[in-house]
Amino acid sequence: MRVKVTLAAANCMFVGAALAQTSVGQGPVSGSSVTLFGIADVAVAYGTGSAAHKTQLVSGANSPSRLGFRGTEDLGGGLGANFWLEAGYNADDGTGVAGNRNNTPAGATSGDVISFNRRATVSLIDLWGELRLGRDFTAPYRNREQVDPFGTNGVGASQANVGTLAGPTATRASNMIGYFLPPGLGGFFGEVQYFMGENISNSATPDDGDGYAARIGYGIGAFGVAIASGSTKFARTSSTGNINVLNIGAFYDFGILKLSGGYYRDKVESIVPVTGTGYLVGGTVPVGVDQVRVSYSTYGTDEAGGPRSRKFAIGYVYTFSKRTVAYVTYAHLANSGGASAALNGSLTAPDRSSNGCDFGLRHSF
Amino acid sequence: MRVKVTLAAANCMFVGAALAQTSVGQGPVSGSSVTLFGIADVAVAYGTGSAAHKTQLVSGANSPSRLGFRGTEDLGGGLGANFWLEAGYNADDGTGVAGNRNNTPAGATSGDVISFNRRATVSLIDLWGELRLGRDFTAPYRNREQVDPFGTNGVGASQANVGTLAGPTATRASNMIGYFLPPGLGGFFGEVQYFMGENISNSATPDDGDGYAARIGYGIGAFGVAIASGSTKFARTSSTGNINVLNIGAFYDFGILKLSGGYYRDKVESIVPVTGTGYLVGGTVPVGVDQVRVSYSTYGTDEAGGPRSRKFAIGYVYTFSKRTVAYVTYAHLANSGGASAALNGSLTAPDRSSNGCDFGLRHSF
Amino acid sequence: MRVKVTLAAANCMFVGAALAQTSVGQGPVSGSSVTLFGIADVAVAYGTGSAAHKTQLVSGANSPSRLGFRGTEDLGGGLGANFWLEAGYNADDGTGVAGNRNNTPAGATSGDVISFNRRATVSLIDLWGELRLGRDFTAPYRNREQVDPFGTNGVGASQANVGTLAGPTATRASNMIGYFLPPGLGGFFGEVQYFMGENISNSATPDDGDGYAARIGYGIGAFGVAIASGSTKFARTSSTGNINVLNIGAFYDFGILKLSGGYYRDKVESIVPVTGTGYLVGGTVPVGVDQVRVSYSTYGTDEAGGPRSRKFAIGYVYTFSKRTVAYVTYAHLANSGGASAALNGSLTAPDRSSNGCDFGLRHSF
Repeated sequence: MRVKVTLAAANCMFVGAALAQTSVGQGPVSGSSVTLFGIADVAVAYGTGSAAHKTQLVSGANSPSRLGFRGTEDLGGGLGANFWLEAGYNADDGTGVAGNRNNTPAGATSGDVISFNRRATVSLIDLWGELRLGRDFTAPYRNREQVDPFGTNGVGASQANVGTLAGPTATRASNMIGYFLPPGLGGFFGEVQYFMGENISNSATPDDGDGYAARIGYGIGAFGVAIASGSTKFARTSSTGNINVLNIGAFYDFGILKLSGGYYRDKVESIVPVTGTGYLVGGTVPVGVDQVRVSYSTYGTDEAGGPRSRKFAIGYVYTFSKRTVAYVTYAHLANSGGASAALNGSLTAPDRSSNGCDFGLRHSF
Repeated sequence: MRVKVTLAAANCMFVGAALAQTSVGQGPVSGSSVTLFGIADVAVAYGTGSAAHKTQLVSGANSPSRLGFRGTEDLGGGLGANFWLEAGYNADDGTGVAGNRNNTPAGATSGDVISFNRRATVSLIDLWGELRLGRDFTAPYRNREQVDPFGTNGVGASQANVGTLAGPTATRASNMIGYFLPPGLGGFFGEVQYFMGENISNSATPDDGDGYAARIGYGIGAFGVAIASGSTKFARTSSTGNINVLNIGAFYDFGILKLSGGYYRDKVESIVPVTGTGYLVGGTVPVGVDQVRVSYSTYGTDEAGGPRSRKFAIGYVYTFSKRTVAYVTYAHLANSGGASAALNGSLTAPDRSSNGCDFGLRHSF
Repeated sequence: MRVKVTLAAANCMFVGAALAQTSVGQGPVSGSSVTLFGIADVAVAYGTGSAAHKTQLVSGANSPSRLGFRGTEDLGGGLGANFWLEAGYNADDGTGVAGNRNNTPAGATSGDVISFNRRATVSLIDLWGELRLGRDFTAPYRNREQVDPFGTNGVGASQANVGTLAGPTATRASNMIGYFLPPGLGGFFGEVQYFMGENISNSATPDDGDGYAARIGYGIGAFGVAIASGSTKFARTSSTGNINVLNIGAFYDFGILKLSGGYYRDKVESIVPVTGTGYLVGGTVPVGVDQVRVSYSTYGTDEAGGPRSRKFAIGYVYTFSKRTVAYVTYAHLANSGGASAALNGSLTAPDRSSNGCDFGLRHSF
């Protein structure tokens, strides 16, 4: 929704009286515009494992529920500024979704709290690209999200996303300085990111939560490919240490089928290092305005036994309109090597399987 | 406020540049609309009891302060979708109002937190009715609210609402699947609801917070009547157990007086069961554009001694405009059988009375 | 942004259907308007002291990041009503900013939570002035903010603001009843405030958080002066007691230089009373559309040793547009008498100095 802006003169006496005695220096300015946007996505989710099953109403099984405010200002001469504030919420109960202040486990915020956990950025954009400051996706996450037919959401989400060892910055990072290449480079795109844990220099762990990431890719017409890498620093202990991420994703749209795939490697430099690897092969088939989604994904680590989970997911998205869809997703997950991943909140014993189903409604605004 | 929607082409270069490298698939779509709405209601509230008195600035003594976002999409052929996100807040200090994740005492969220605690729903609506998913009022609450001249708010709120034994789902439930009959049934209306506590099957209390409710009624012209019932499951202990609610409400608008009444029964199936009963008789008298509100309400239980509280309340609402009113409410409460209810945060000894007054300003937007 | 209002008839069937079965009595009304406004301000902040340094991405170093909703209604005959809801947030990580429920240390809310901590008010305004109810700035704060070239924000903020002993109501108070003189009194302006701690009368500290404040001033053309005073009650202990604040601020705009100054005195009536005093001399120099800001400020107390901090700050604000600026600020702070204040999260030993720098981007909407 782009709301149209007018600064009406009516009632200004009252506004003026109020402003005159407050310290708000920066009021709204004529010519500004704000876009209010969001998604409300609710599904009935059922999961079953060898030990216990669960039925829930869940939020965001097709696309995470959110409410956002964003806007752009044309500064002339090819220069622009924008802001983007996006809050996640649970459409099944109205509560918030956890964010993170400093890219470490200790910086996680309460899951009840609505904050701009999904994105809080201000940008300067010119012909040379975009400088973006604040909280945003980390670059390697985009390769997990963009090649997954289920967009890393719901019971069908890529197991390489669900099982990732990539830690507190797996999806987003706070205190980030990012730079994006401009569009119009013949299909090439790219970004670099530096983010800060904001520790004082005499801290016991002065670098925890500091990190960097980059992604470069090529996309033209029906084809796209991108490679991304990043590293976040954590003091080495038996359970954690620097986390290094490398992945690659690609897709080709044949028209009757959009085929996508990705390979993922996450390494945790704990005292005994652990490496997780996974891949995904996915397909999206248009059925008129509707869509069939299929994916096979796997993720496992080199820990004792070689625990690994493999997921097969299939879904159908029924399109009421561009803004409103209904969807159903079924997933089957198999564990080996001692893994015990389970779907939709169910519980399964090591090496046993789990099944899950989402049936939901998504409305965008 | 219905904001008018235009998707301007200007500045799309910047928006496009930003979007191209993010994973937000569902942006705002041309033709959408969002209604931003709310209430700011603040009152000076004074309460006095036999033990202590209190003076406060309170929020929502006429109508709870809130900020909401909602919208509707016409999908054609009599089909529509809508969303409704409504957050309560305290207009006296800017903080939030507690919600609940799972319909149990343990699922309550912090009162400081602003969330969509009042309502978070997405709906599909057609000629057969409305399917509504998310967090919403429970059906029996509507009979407490709609026949109370004070709308269950402020010092005059029906004692059958204030004292209710109906537990965490007394007013709202999360994780709800609801169905409403369509309008146009010759005055008949109705709804059924199923809501989930979302416990895993091997939990010690696998059903806590699960429940259902229904309401059916008839309203035409000046007359309305509705009956509602519901049940929420909790494991039986000395202090709690399944809670069963039954109530009936009715009103008749004589023009010079809108008369309303309700009867309420709440049963807690604890090891020694407890039943609460109450009723309300209320009247609303228009005085030009202003309004006089009067009610007598009572609520008590069958616990030892038969504790019961009786409240008489009278108020005047002065109408500046449809959006802005000032109001004053006075209430007197009498306790018997060992009850010690007190008004506006005061404290009174068992079987002693309490008095309270609100003087406030409500502005809707 | 003033959004234009239309109440379209389209889709009302669905809205109507939803409303008919909910208990929301006060919907949006034709003719209303809401202004959505905000600031996103992010800076790279560096601080160094004798003991440790720190680098962060910070929010609001030029002007605090915020998102707000406000509106005004003309009630005719010179009467108006308005509401103002303004939430602070951290644009570097998307989290909230702490508020306070009851003007005492115990009433502080979590810093992760987004609430209307900056302002939550509803007002009635007529030719006699404005009655404002809710949470707002305290009157004496305005003299700290309005004469500080850096607006009390970022590394350059007046040391008389940073070091103030004025306690939980130093900047804002909740549960406030305020009255403002109307504009048009030949340059005179003024306000009085009463705010409540909302304790029950039999509390051990029945008056904690109660207080009052007033400010009166004169401003015409290039000149302005104001004096303010306030008192907040706290039970006397070794570390706290009633806090009494008195300050005066003035400015004169020579065109090529806006010169400002302030004197500040805060007294804490603890068992051994403590008095803090400070002053500020500041200058703002326009450079075309840009701005150079300079200030010297000091604050210290009469505690043992006479601890005192002195800050010199200089900054440049580069103006892209009325809505978007970039800025750089440098500050040097010297401690004496055992003080150990440090800039931008760094750490310095008693009587050692600290330096800090902000480099940021602010976008208003």
